[in-house]
Amino acid sequence: MSELVRRAEKLDAGDPLAGKRAQFVLDDVVYLDGNSLGALPANVPARVADVVARQWGELRIRSWDESGWWTAPERIGDRIAPLVGAAAGQIVVGDSTSVNVFKAVVAAVRIAGDGRDEILVDATTFPTDGYMAESAARMTGRTLRPVEPAEVPDALSDRTAAVLLNHADYRTGRLHDLPALTAAVRAAGAVSVWDLCHSAGALPVGLDEHEVDLAVGCTYKYLNGGPGSPAYLYVRRSLQDVFDSPLPGWNSHAEPFGMRPAYEPAPGAVRGRVGTPDILSLLALEAALEVWEDVSIHAVRAKSLALTDFFLECVDAYVPDGRVACLTPLEHGERGSQIALRCDDASTVMRRLIAHGVVGDFRPPNTLRFGFTPLYVGFTDVERAARLLGELLLT
Amino acid sequence: MSELVRRAEKLDAGDPLAGKRAQFVLDDVVYLDGNSLGALPANVPARVADVVARQWGELRIRSWDESGWWTAPERIGDRIAPLVGAAAGQIVVGDSTSVNVFKAVVAAVRIAGDGRDEILVDATTFPTDGYMAESAARMTGRTLRPVEPAEVPDALSDRTAAVLLNHADYRTGRLHDLPALTAAVRAAGAVSVWDLCHSAGALPVGLDEHEVDLAVGCTYKYLNGGPGSPAYLYVRRSLQDVFDSPLPGWNSHAEPFGMRPAYEPAPGAVRGRVGTPDILSLLALEAALEVWEDVSIHAVRAKSLALTDFFLECVDAYVPDGRVACLTPLEHGERGSQIALRCDDASTVMRRLIAHGVVGDFRPPNTLRFGFTPLYVGFTDVERAARLLGELLLT
Repeated sequence: MSELVRRAEKLDAGDPLAGKRAQFVLDDVVYLDGNSLGALPANVPARVADVVARQWGELRIRSWDESGWWTAPERIGDRIAPLVGAAAGQIVVGDSTSVNVFKAVVAAVRIAGDGRDEILVDATTFPTDGYMAESAARMTGRTLRPVEPAEVPDALSDRTAAVLLNHADYRTGRLHDLPALTAAVRAAGAVSVWDLCHSAGALPVGLDEHEVDLAVGCTYKYLNGGPGSPAYLYVRRSLQDVFDSPLPGWNSHAEPFGMRPAYEPAPGAVRGRVGTPDILSLLALEAALEVWEDVSIHAVRAKSLALTDFFLECVDAYVPDGRVACLTPLEHGERGSQIALRCDDASTVMRRLIAHGVVGDFRPPNTLRFGFTPLYVGFTDVERAARLLGELLLT
Repeated sequence: MSELVRRAEKLDAGDPLAGKRAQFVLDDVVYLDGNSLGALPANVPARVADVVARQWGELRIRSWDESGWWTAPERIGDRIAPLVGAAAGQIVVGDSTSVNVFKAVVAAVRIAGDGRDEILVDATTFPTDGYMAESAARMTGRTLRPVEPAEVPDALSDRTAAVLLNHADYRTGRLHDLPALTAAVRAAGAVSVWDLCHSAGALPVGLDEHEVDLAVGCTYKYLNGGPGSPAYLYVRRSLQDVFDSPLPGWNSHAEPFGMRPAYEPAPGAVRGRVGTPDILSLLALEAALEVWEDVSIHAVRAKSLALTDFFLECVDAYVPDGRVACLTPLEHGERGSQIALRCDDASTVMRRLIAHGVVGDFRPPNTLRFGFTPLYVGFTDVERAARLLGELLLT
């Protein structure tokens, strides 16, 4: 048995989160794609079955009250809140990340006021954020300016209305400096909007602590909510009264069942709701979030860094020199919970990894991407993945 | 046994759709609230269980291809298409009705062009449509003008950009004249947007035949997709190339996995997609739509009118004179698939109806609303509901 295998076993034995794996449905595959679609929490199938057969099938319309359907968006938001460092009453769940980006950027521009005509957007962003920011700019008469996150402080001015940034880069796994960038945006009098898709559930975000203004995120990656599960919107409490949504659906009305012709926004985070909430997906997500009940996000972060450190060590040991290059920063403060490796013929390599039971994903043109979900990935998984990668690249 | 009971039994015996009831999960309740939340189709629980346990739990990320997740929005749109008289390739499913109203009204204004500065909206509409139209007007620099549907022809002018109308009024059940109003809008050079929430699945809509431009609808009423199931967007084929969405998410990109910084809209109905599709809810809806496989929407309409006619006849026979007044038009051409009765103390009356096993709903201030879903409501149900109403109003 190699030294690294022994190390992995010892690390697993000392892992305070090791017991969490039993709360997921997993097989002998090493699943390093939880940064794309989280694994199924074991309590979800029974919950969904109950929602379908009893709540919908038997109670039918009564479930809007009796099964708590109506309040699900804000109730589930409050479940996500501690994971991203937010006090209760600031997050609602619903719609896709893209739709929430649109709400947030338009609302940010409106909060910033008429005198500010520029929106800055992360030039390295997941494309949908850029497309939605472009539409928000077009529809509010602002100019969209893509900048590298590190260059945001220099790009800020009294023209800046809003700044849309990704907490972690979806390709490289680079973690951007949320506290410093948020402070710079605030100092410039602009409104910050953070996309947490690739950080929420993998590391502490500290929305309240760092005085982030608005944030959005998906729930199907590290939060394991299921394929395309609803996204969420965070509106800082002090901004809720001035949050002016471009999508003022009846669910965000102060009196939704008043059926009034004139729109009057609800107080609080509920103002971020739009249409009728999608109950099946929401309640599957609610069940999925229960695995977090006794978990500290700081423990998750510690394990995440240990996993990615150990993966890089194993890659270094097993993979022939020069066959891969790490695109993810080595500095802990700049690293999310994934490792991206540049590799010739990466598409074929990933296909072979998957065929041999190690699932990551391929990003064109030449990147192998591995996500490390601390709730269910262990150190022996990591060693096995790196060893297989080494074997494939030897031949 | 009364004459009406015998008539009801005879009508049920001759009902070509009577067998459909067995495809739903129903108990001895008379469920006349399918115009709010359709009953559970019996094949849905097993399908959802498979989506959760096998597609998500076992195949995980592979299901985006292998389980057809990626193409669900347009595939399910093609299942809805025949029910609303649309050829394939014009409907995508996803997002809420409210969000789709926003997409459609903004896109309609853009199609109409710069010279037209007014949006007409049904003054009697379900409120969310009005709120979203107001936002669309604000964000495109147009003026919103509420008008009664019957007055739309007179209100149209060369200033009219778009007209948003409900096919059936959610309170009274009045059916508006979609063919004539659409023709009038077209003749004025404006773009028509129809909300089909209260008609799709209950009666023929004829989107293609009547040359409707854009349409939206929910899927949780007569289409039985489940609580808050995803809505749909119809974009007439000839307008697809000029459909310019205000919500250009990565799923509507011509090359979504190219991850390109510049947005380029996909051809076809797919252009109406936004973010990652919500798979659990979409595939529950897909299963629910299978009950329509051998159903003619014309047969549904015939039964719907027979049900509401018979209900009114029974109400007339059982309910003491003057205790209720019908708000729904008696003309077949002006009637959807619900009956609204004005009734003193309607809130209490509805509570008592529900307590005795007849479920409709109450609309403030004084309306009893009964929906008739031809796939699972029978004539004996209707007789029982009217008889109970009569008994309650006698005492």
